[in-house]
Amino acid sequence: MLKVTDRVKHIIAIASGKGGVGKSTTAVNLALALASKGVRVGILDADIYGPNQPQMLGANEKPTSKDGKTLEPVHAHGIQSMSIGYLIDIKTPMVWRGPMATSALQQLLNDTHWGNLEYLIVDLPPGTGDIQLTLTQKIPLAGAIIVTTPQDIALLDVRKAVAMFNKVKVRLLGVVENMCAHVCSQCGHEEPIFGEGGGERIATECGVNLLGALPLDSRIRQQADLGKPIFLVDDQGSIAEIYQSIADKIVAQLSKKSKGSPKFPKIVIEKN
Amino acid sequence: MLKVTDRVKHIIAIASGKGGVGKSTTAVNLALALASKGVRVGILDADIYGPNQPQMLGANEKPTSKDGKTLEPVHAHGIQSMSIGYLIDIKTPMVWRGPMATSALQQLLNDTHWGNLEYLIVDLPPGTGDIQLTLTQKIPLAGAIIVTTPQDIALLDVRKAVAMFNKVKVRLLGVVENMCAHVCSQCGHEEPIFGEGGGERIATECGVNLLGALPLDSRIRQQADLGKPIFLVDDQGSIAEIYQSIADKIVAQLSKKSKGSPKFPKIVIEKN
Repeated sequence: MLKVTDRVKHIIAIASGKGGVGKSTTAVNLALALASKGVRVGILDADIYGPNQPQMLGANEKPTSKDGKTLEPVHAHGIQSMSIGYLIDIKTPMVWRGPMATSALQQLLNDTHWGNLEYLIVDLPPGTGDIQLTLTQKIPLAGAIIVTTPQDIALLDVRKAVAMFNKVKVRLLGVVENMCAHVCSQCGHEEPIFGEGGGERIATECGVNLLGALPLDSRIRQQADLGKPIFLVDDQGSIAEIYQSIADKIVAQLSKKSKGSPKFPKIVIEKN
Repeated sequence: MLKVTDRVKHIIAIASGKGGVGKSTTAVNLALALASKGVRVGILDADIYGPNQPQMLGANEKPTSKDGKTLEPVHAHGIQSMSIGYLIDIKTPMVWRGPMATSALQQLLNDTHWGNLEYLIVDLPPGTGDIQLTLTQKIPLAGAIIVTTPQDIALLDVRKAVAMFNKVKVRLLGVVENMCAHVCSQCGHEEPIFGEGGGERIATECGVNLLGALPLDSRIRQQADLGKPIFLVDDQGSIAEIYQSIADKIVAQLSKKSKGSPKFPKIVIEKN
């Protein structure tokens, strides 16, 4: 097994306590915003049970191997990517217990021939279970970004994710709020379907930055479904600007920290 | 350990491959719609990592025990409920590996003193992991309802959930589509923010019924955040009617089946 840290400078986890808040969408658009700065970026789709990145990236080729040991990442829109979705049939459910899922994830992380990345974005599955534990134990994360929607029910789960990262001593880079208001495409009326200000509240409560807030704009979903993320088609628009601004803040935060090599976090895990 | 089947007639799982599609909201409103028929209904919040039912039900009392062995379910809005959320601090993340989470779930199911329920609605966490495997192995499910939103990315994960239930031979009662269109509260313009027709497509593809489709109406989210589900406040309105109609279809389907006692499904599980 190779050491992923030899080939990746900063590993950033995109997390949320709750599913369906736009974590994968944030991961892919943020990766593209970082790549637009002219650095090498990769995405690891850590959602073993519901991998979405192949569809979001519009990529479906099988990864090849040059040396018979490692897999070449799949290239799409200028970024490198790896996902269990490239390796299995799209309709097959992964009826795997935790240890199998985490073992698969470690292989995807370590046995991918990442090409000297500045940033590797890890798109985590929702929750605070095996995958997250393994990641925080095995990978020297530069930090984690928490994605949420504004409603109270989502915040309930976000608090748990924040507490988990605090517990395992992974640095929180900030909060991204998705679906913060819908603008009617006919009359322009702004409606906070999923509530208001939740991202700001949770950021304040947890003492981290609100990195940015994205509107509930159906184009974001449409482009994700099409395999061409909004960042690529909205390059003069306000949504791309928001992602660019989030990317800028992350780069600034990580450059402040770069003293020596990343340390593996030491944590105590509850025994089964 | 008591046998839950002695005290519960029909156990129905509410599932989805993807999080954030409104599974918990569907579970609680469906439970209320079933209870409005004058039968005893319970909800088991099987989401160990992100329990939402206490907030959705507006309940936060600690469950008591009368016999020192079993927990009394928490009563709210006329239904019985149990959730890990009643037993732990709201901000504490459950950093548990799979076996611990499944063991906790089994206790919540079997050690709750359910009061002779006609229906127990089990609100599953998203995905096809340990919790789902345990449920389908340990509990004689009368059937499963799949919740989805219309967009392609959600359907990708729904297909996996459907395949999982087929694999473990749990009967699919049908599909509920959430967030199918948003109606502007100012001009009435209807906009399919999350796409169109996904529920119908997946139902047809999988050979099951589309039980109903709910609009993307911010009142549904508001009432969930308030702990007073929309079914209770919209009792003359169209949303309550949709849930009532879904409940009717489920009752009809289950009454067709009731021949003898439920059988435990026999399945082969992949070894770790």
